Amino acid sequence: MAKEPKQLDELFHDTLKDIYFAEKKILATLPKMEKAAQAPELKKAFAKHKTETEGHVERLEKVFAAIDKKPQGKTCAAIVGITDEGAEIMDEYKGSPALDAGLLAAAQAVEHYEISRYGTLRTWAEELGLKDAVRLLTQTLEEEKNTDATLTEIAESVVNQEAGAA
Amino acid sequence: MAKEPKQLDELFHDTLKDIYFAEKKILATLPKMEKAAQAPELKKAFAKHKTETEGHVERLEKVFAAIDKKPQGKTCAAIVGITDEGAEIMDEYKGSPALDAGLLAAAQAVEHYEISRYGTLRTWAEELGLKDAVRLLTQTLEEEKNTDATLTEIAESVVNQEAGAA
Repeated sequence: MAKEPKQLDELFHDTLKDIYFAEKKILATLPKMEKAAQAPELKKAFAKHKTETEGHVERLEKVFAAIDKKPQGKTCAAIVGITDEGAEIMDEYKGSPALDAGLLAAAQAVEHYEISRYGTLRTWAEELGLKDAVRLLTQTLEEEKNTDATLTEIAESVVNQEAGAA
Repeated sequence: MAKEPKQLDELFHDTLKDIYFAEKKILATLPKMEKAAQAPELKKAFAKHKTETEGHVERLEKVFAAIDKKPQGKTCAAIVGITDEGAEIMDEYKGSPALDAGLLAAAQAVEHYEISRYGTLRTWAEELGLKDAVRLLTQTLEEEKNTDATLTEIAESVVNQEAGAA
């Protein structure tokens, strides 16, 4: 039982597995969200983000390679919780003018989870001297922030339109 | 079974219950994080955020009052997942110089979840014409953003110090 305490490189590896699982879960969820979305700009945003997410998975595989590890996921309870809440909204608000607002809320919770994880991983990669990883993680972090900003814009316009139409 | 589809005011109320549950869960978790933290500035940040979180709970109670509802929580699977991950880190990294880095990662995931929820609720409160709610939600949103910024600063300094000390 008296194991050596785990170090920052192991925390980096553990958290990489966590976000790798999360990205794959998001990739499986986005087509459902695209299908459920009512506003065309929201459908389009989900489709675009699916393509980006495929790129995020590939980048994570390169980060695993940079630390000589095989890509591997580890169940991330946070993203399971967030996507379960999204599924609940798709069910409870089906046919409601508020559905898109609910989908947007779920998608923004996902983006913020990813922003926190990529920000953390980048800080640690810098500390561990993993230059390639810093570059790859920064690229994805910027894309996640842009997606969140796009979703905020859509949220403001969609909520206004739908309230007006109701 | 043919219920009327739920509307934006119900989505607002449902999401208010979600974040009310989350804030209470966070309030119960912060003393454990404060106790576990090694760096004095991190202990201090958790203690300060506990006091702020008490204020967030009170503000949420005022938002419930503004829509003539009793304060009520609804299990938020996302925050349960995030805090479970935090508990796992406290266990697995006990005694490790990487513990504070892990605690910071968990705390920033919590902050980002809250930032997304308060941002969403504020957008909806504006649309629903709930002026007092907009004001209250904005105050908390700003505090959560400030806490996240403080945690980022601490993360950068703590990781450097601990890696240097290891």
